[in-house]
Amino acid sequence: MIQPRVLKGFRDFLPDLEARKKSIVRTLEEVFTSFGYLPIDTPVLEYAEILLGKSGGETEKQVYRFTDHGGRDVALRFDLTVPFARFMAQHMAELYLPFRRYHIAKVFRGENTQRGRYREFMQCDFDIVGPDSTSADLEVLLIMQKALASLGMERFTIHLSHRGVLQDFLARLEVSEPVEVLRTVDKIRKIGREKVRETLAQLSDEERAGRILDFIAPGSEPEEALSRMEEGVGADNPHLARLKEIWAVIGELGLARFFTIDPSITRGLDYYTGVVFETFLSDLPDIGSVCSGGRYDNLVGLYSAQSMSGVGASIGLDRLMAAMQELGMLEAIPTMAPEVLVVCMEERFLAHYHGVAAALRARGVRTEVYPQARKLGQQFSYAEKKGIPFALIMGEDEIAAGAMALKDLAARTQRVVRGLEEVVHAVEHRREGVHPS
Amino acid sequence: MIQPRVLKGFRDFLPDLEARKKSIVRTLEEVFTSFGYLPIDTPVLEYAEILLGKSGGETEKQVYRFTDHGGRDVALRFDLTVPFARFMAQHMAELYLPFRRYHIAKVFRGENTQRGRYREFMQCDFDIVGPDSTSADLEVLLIMQKALASLGMERFTIHLSHRGVLQDFLARLEVSEPVEVLRTVDKIRKIGREKVRETLAQLSDEERAGRILDFIAPGSEPEEALSRMEEGVGADNPHLARLKEIWAVIGELGLARFFTIDPSITRGLDYYTGVVFETFLSDLPDIGSVCSGGRYDNLVGLYSAQSMSGVGASIGLDRLMAAMQELGMLEAIPTMAPEVLVVCMEERFLAHYHGVAAALRARGVRTEVYPQARKLGQQFSYAEKKGIPFALIMGEDEIAAGAMALKDLAARTQRVVRGLEEVVHAVEHRREGVHPS
Repeated sequence: MIQPRVLKGFRDFLPDLEARKKSIVRTLEEVFTSFGYLPIDTPVLEYAEILLGKSGGETEKQVYRFTDHGGRDVALRFDLTVPFARFMAQHMAELYLPFRRYHIAKVFRGENTQRGRYREFMQCDFDIVGPDSTSADLEVLLIMQKALASLGMERFTIHLSHRGVLQDFLARLEVSEPVEVLRTVDKIRKIGREKVRETLAQLSDEERAGRILDFIAPGSEPEEALSRMEEGVGADNPHLARLKEIWAVIGELGLARFFTIDPSITRGLDYYTGVVFETFLSDLPDIGSVCSGGRYDNLVGLYSAQSMSGVGASIGLDRLMAAMQELGMLEAIPTMAPEVLVVCMEERFLAHYHGVAAALRARGVRTEVYPQARKLGQQFSYAEKKGIPFALIMGEDEIAAGAMALKDLAARTQRVVRGLEEVVHAVEHRREGVHPS
Repeated sequence: MIQPRVLKGFRDFLPDLEARKKSIVRTLEEVFTSFGYLPIDTPVLEYAEILLGKSGGETEKQVYRFTDHGGRDVALRFDLTVPFARFMAQHMAELYLPFRRYHIAKVFRGENTQRGRYREFMQCDFDIVGPDSTSADLEVLLIMQKALASLGMERFTIHLSHRGVLQDFLARLEVSEPVEVLRTVDKIRKIGREKVRETLAQLSDEERAGRILDFIAPGSEPEEALSRMEEGVGADNPHLARLKEIWAVIGELGLARFFTIDPSITRGLDYYTGVVFETFLSDLPDIGSVCSGGRYDNLVGLYSAQSMSGVGASIGLDRLMAAMQELGMLEAIPTMAPEVLVVCMEERFLAHYHGVAAALRARGVRTEVYPQARKLGQQFSYAEKKGIPFALIMGEDEIAAGAMALKDLAARTQRVVRGLEEVVHAVEHRREGVHPS
C-alpha cells in the first residue's frame, strides 16, 4: 500500500475552498475584462533557457528543472512575467498594441516552505504593453483598486513611487552602487530602518545613508512626500512629473483614500524602470504586499531586438486568500453547494426523481438526487454536511397525489407543496437571505 | 538573443481562443454545479510512486518524471483519475459519501504529437463516489448529455455498455484471456473489424472470434442490442439488468435520441468494472470519443484498505474544442472583448476619460481607454482589430458642451449623445443582436 500524501509545499483544495477560490478568480476576471484585459495562457513547462535567461542564482536554485524524454532542458514556470515576455516576442505579428492581457495560473518554486509559502501557487497578472503613458500607469492602479474592492476589501492602501525618481536622487548624491542601494531600500519592511541604515552606510557613507533614509521616510502625507522628492531631484524631473500627474488624477477620480505616495517602494528587481507599487492591508500589515507591480521598459529584450514597454501588476492569490481567511471574509463567499436534495425513497421511482431534478435545474435551482434508498435521517444528515438547505421528499403517497414534501433542513420544518414553483420560490427567498418558516 | 518558442506538443492560447476556452469551462462548471458536483484541485506535481503505482509500461514511458532539489522522485500528473484516488484515500475523514466532484485542469503526457495530440492538455473529470447504484450511473450519463447540449452540441450519441456483460459472455464462451479480448475489442474503431477478428482468433479460435464479433456488432437498434446481449448472458444477468434499467429511465426522461446501446464499448483500462461509455459526434466520427467514462469498484485500493466504488466521465477539452472549431461552433462563443473604447483626444483630459470609463463599467459595460493621444484613425483601427464595437469621442468642444460623440465602428456612423444612458442603450441593443443604425 502506498501512503496517500502530497509533496511538501503542495496542497489539495477541498470543495469549499476550491469553490471560493474559483469565485474569487471569477470576480477578478470580471474586473479585468471590464477594463478591456483579455485572458491568455502559456505552457506550464518551457525550455529552461527561455525561463532562466535573465535570472540570477537565486531563481535558478528554486526552479524545477529537468531533462525530458527528448533530451530537452526544461523547467516549470516560476512566474508569469517571463512566459509573457516570451509570448509577446513570439506572437508580435499576430497581436496589436496596446496589448492588454491577464493571466491567472499556477507557478512553481522549490523555495523554503516556512512562513506559509507554497511551492505551487497561483499568480494573477495583468499588464498593458505599448505606450509609456500616464494613462496606462494610472489604469493599472485603477484596476488594482477595483479588484480588491470587488472582493469586499475596504481597508487597503496602494503605495506608489517611481524608481526613476529615487535613481535620479541617488545620481545627484553620487552614490556609487545605486542598484544595490535600491535593493537595500526594498528590504526596509523586512529588516527595518536601522539595518537598512547600516547597509547603506557600508555601500556609501553615514551621511549619504542618512540622506537616503530621510528621502524614503514613510508615514508622511502624500503631498509632503512629493515635496520631499521635489527637493531631492528638482521640480523639472520628468519622473516626478509623471508621479504627480498620476496622483492628481487619482484625486480627481475621488480615489485618494486608497493610495499613498511612498518613496521607499523600489521593488527589488532590476526589471522595473518607472512607477512601482505595492499594496498593504491596514488590518494585516505583516502579511506583506498582496498586489505589486510597476512599469518596465524592456519586456522582450531577451528574445527580440524590438523594444517594448509595459506596466502591470500581480496579485498573489494564495496570500490574498490567506488574508481573507484571517479577516473572516472567505466564509462569506458562496460555495455553489446544491440547493435542493431530491430524497430517494424507493429506487423504482428513479425516473421521477431525476425528472423533477431536471425540471428544477431548468428553473435555475442547483439540485441533486440522493443516489440510493437509505434511511431518511441518513439522507438529511448528508444534506446538512454538504450545506444543502432543502430536501424534497416524494414517496409512493406523494407521487400518487401529485405532491411533494419540502423540508427546510435548517429550520427543521416540512410542508406539502403542489408545484415546482413553490420549491423555486423557497430557494429564491433563501438566496435573498429570507428564510421562510 | 534567445529564440522565443514553446516545446513541441505545447502551445500558447491567444486572447480569443483562451476567452472561448474559459467560456466553455464556465458553461461546463454551471452544468456540474447544477447537479451538485463541486470543484476540487490537486497539485500538478506529485510523488512518482503515487502517480505511477498501478500504471503499466506505456504510461511510465510518457510521464514527465524527475528528481527534485530534495532528492524526491516526482512526476507531473498524466491524468486526473489517479490524483483523485489519492485525494479520496487521503481526505476520507474530512469528506462524506456520496462524494461528487469535478476537476478541470491540465495534465501532461510526453506522447507522440502526431494527429493533433498535445503533451499538455486540459481534462475535465466528474465523478460520484459511494453507492454502486443505477441512479449514480444514470446521473453521470445525464450530465454528459447536458454538458454537450449546453455547449450547443446537438448531433452526438453516447454509446453505452456494461463491461460485466461482455465479461460474463466471455466466461460462458470459456475464453482463456478475457482481459486481452476486452482490450482488443476496445480497438475496433481504430484498427477495424477484420484486424480485431484476426487478433481474437489468435487469442482463442475462429469460431469464438466470430461469436464475439457477432455479440459486439455495432449499428443495430438499442433494443436489438439488448436482446442479443440477453441471448449471450441470460435474462437473469445482473449487469444486463442494470443496463436495461438505465436504458428504460433514459427513455422515460425523453433523452433516448442522445444514447445508444453499443456492446463494442469496453474501455481498454482494467480499471473499469461496470457501465462504460463513449461519446461520438455524428458530424465528426473520426475525431474519436469526446467524453468517456464508466464505473470502477476499486478507486482507492492502492492507497487504502477501504473499498470505494464510483462512476464518472472525462471530457477531453482540447479535442472537444478542436471539434467545435471544425464545426464552426467556436466563433459563436463570445470573447469578452470590450464594448466601448474611450478615445484619447488630448492627454490633459485623462481624468475625464477614466471617469467616464468607470461610470460605464459601473453600468455593466466593458470599457477601455486608449492610453495615449494618437490619430483618430489609428485608434479606430485598434478598436476594429480587437473587436470593440463602439468608440466614444470627447475632445475639448464635446467636454465643454457636456456631450460625447458615439461612433458605431461596424456601421461607420457617428452621433452626438448627451448622457451615458444612451451609450449603455446602444451597447445593450448590440448585445441583443440589434445593431442600431
